[in-house]
Amino acid sequence: MKTVRLDLSHSPYDIHIGQGLLQRVELIVPLLPQKQVAIVSNETVAPLYLEKLRASLEGAGVCCHSIVLPDGEQYKTWETLNLIFDGLLANRCERKTTLIALGGGVIGDMTGFAAAVYQRGAPFIQIPTTLLAQVDSSVGGKTAINHPLGKNMIGAFYQPRLVLADLDTLNTLPDREFSAGLAEVIKYGLIDDFEFFEWLESNIERLMSRDSEALAHAIERCCRNKARVVAQDEKETAGVRELLNLGHTFGHAIEAGLGYGAWLHGEAVAAGMMLAAHASHELGQIDDESVARIKALLTKAALPVAAPDLGLARYRELMAGDKKVESGRIRYILMRELGQCYAGELPLDVLEKTLKTGCDR
Amino acid sequence: MKTVRLDLSHSPYDIHIGQGLLQRVELIVPLLPQKQVAIVSNETVAPLYLEKLRASLEGAGVCCHSIVLPDGEQYKTWETLNLIFDGLLANRCERKTTLIALGGGVIGDMTGFAAAVYQRGAPFIQIPTTLLAQVDSSVGGKTAINHPLGKNMIGAFYQPRLVLADLDTLNTLPDREFSAGLAEVIKYGLIDDFEFFEWLESNIERLMSRDSEALAHAIERCCRNKARVVAQDEKETAGVRELLNLGHTFGHAIEAGLGYGAWLHGEAVAAGMMLAAHASHELGQIDDESVARIKALLTKAALPVAAPDLGLARYRELMAGDKKVESGRIRYILMRELGQCYAGELPLDVLEKTLKTGCDR
Repeated sequence: MKTVRLDLSHSPYDIHIGQGLLQRVELIVPLLPQKQVAIVSNETVAPLYLEKLRASLEGAGVCCHSIVLPDGEQYKTWETLNLIFDGLLANRCERKTTLIALGGGVIGDMTGFAAAVYQRGAPFIQIPTTLLAQVDSSVGGKTAINHPLGKNMIGAFYQPRLVLADLDTLNTLPDREFSAGLAEVIKYGLIDDFEFFEWLESNIERLMSRDSEALAHAIERCCRNKARVVAQDEKETAGVRELLNLGHTFGHAIEAGLGYGAWLHGEAVAAGMMLAAHASHELGQIDDESVARIKALLTKAALPVAAPDLGLARYRELMAGDKKVESGRIRYILMRELGQCYAGELPLDVLEKTLKTGCDR
Repeated sequence: MKTVRLDLSHSPYDIHIGQGLLQRVELIVPLLPQKQVAIVSNETVAPLYLEKLRASLEGAGVCCHSIVLPDGEQYKTWETLNLIFDGLLANRCERKTTLIALGGGVIGDMTGFAAAVYQRGAPFIQIPTTLLAQVDSSVGGKTAINHPLGKNMIGAFYQPRLVLADLDTLNTLPDREFSAGLAEVIKYGLIDDFEFFEWLESNIERLMSRDSEALAHAIERCCRNKARVVAQDEKETAGVRELLNLGHTFGHAIEAGLGYGAWLHGEAVAAGMMLAAHASHELGQIDDESVARIKALLTKAALPVAAPDLGLARYRELMAGDKKVESGRIRYILMRELGQCYAGELPLDVLEKTLKTGCDR
């Protein structure tokens, strides 16, 4: 088992990465202020892992309630969030009852947000069961739900007390979701870790065959990278954390433009990172070879490398609604060189050329 | 103008109390990170003060959006909260757009919660227009909405950047709401400020006639008392802040039992404080005379001194769902002596006698 420590001012916590962690209740129980938990999961993950987790917790004398939600990004809404509150209140859960998120990014984001606001803040533990959630959404305390007019528009910064990334849960992950997780893995190489990008180029086949050792290394590296950034800029005010949005300004537009759930978040981010690469190339910052290397790696990870052709006007409209907009100006994460990103703006003509080059037609 | 400074670790802010503050934009403008605000008000307050506030802000070059909600505790729900998000997103409000709550406790609680979670946290200013909001709900950063199974069950601790308590707005307040505000004023005397309790006994007639000088004194005193408590225990973890709930365990049960909106919050708190007095008397802690003095003061403030007769079982059921419940035990704020409260539990037989004595029948 590897452990990454998140050193945040108020609420430091550990991310444990390894096999068989669902049964390691001794990692969980000492952190519960009350021997009562509510496990929030979805209809896909619950049949696979809920009973295993519940049995190990109940074996340690913990009273477990469970709340099972429908599965999918399209359910990351007020209405589904309310199902969590209904379940908590119907079971008389108190503000010291710990909420455990058992599932992917959507379950983590919604359960974290529910914990942030239930009785103004209940304890929260995350057990991410997808690669994407293990490398990305379980680190950093961003929780949220979507609004019809924008993704993750309603949310909170709220840190878990513990994250358990059990590698065994990745074995049941469908190929498409596994690849979507690799998009966020590759993102960390591109942001500011060229060495890791090269390691990924050499090990992408091992990762695609879900080799545990390679996976553990990649997940740990991503968590360490993200932990470093989050510790510097917990609430995204210092401009550092912004870099984690590589591929996300375009990506969120793709997700919203096609309707949530049509493309997986990681797929949209992959196509968004390619657009960021094309834009950076257009600006004369990265060369043809770099663009080709990014494209090759994403392709080996079975990810889309062309964005859907929504048209310039629609892309602009969708991106103008993004949280990263400041005083009406859209902020993009761009590449200074391969493995080195920065935040900046894009002139309209560059955006137009980027979409011409990078969109499927 | 009097000013009370809230010295909270991360986010100190000022409460200004005085006349004509709605026009004093120089107090607001320097605190705006962006010259854009969204004013949230309700159908009762908006016609009286929204245009005045908007005109003064626009005169200072601030772009103002406004969102007008229906009026009443029964609208403190997800559905109404969503109207705020709809308005913010439709107007492309960014995360640096400041939300201004112009109204009473419900508007303050909902706007504060909306600000806490809009794009994971937008700046927030409060302009409370009721006595209750000026002395209580605008101090301390508690924001929330109700759930059908419990009051203020979903919320956040989120501090405003500024509170403007404009005494002029109290002139239009209906008598019943003014009295409801006095319940919270009297609460501060009872918790730990006997000197203030005696001042209230001598000045209740001046307050009832809405004498500005007396009002300014009372509001400032309440804010200072609450500020002291909140600074010691911002997130209600140290047991100090709990005392502010005097009358609220019973009061919330009354509100929920009768259906939100039937009794005003302050009315329920007044009846709840009387029940707390009866319980403390039953426990042999305060004498007949103290109970009579509390009753007399509440009566002069035109507040109810008898609780509705919901029955022992229903009271217990309603109180068991309260946020203050810990490991299934209901916590009450009780009186050690007149002007000195503590938090504790109530034996069932004492509760039964208390309800017999204190309920209307």
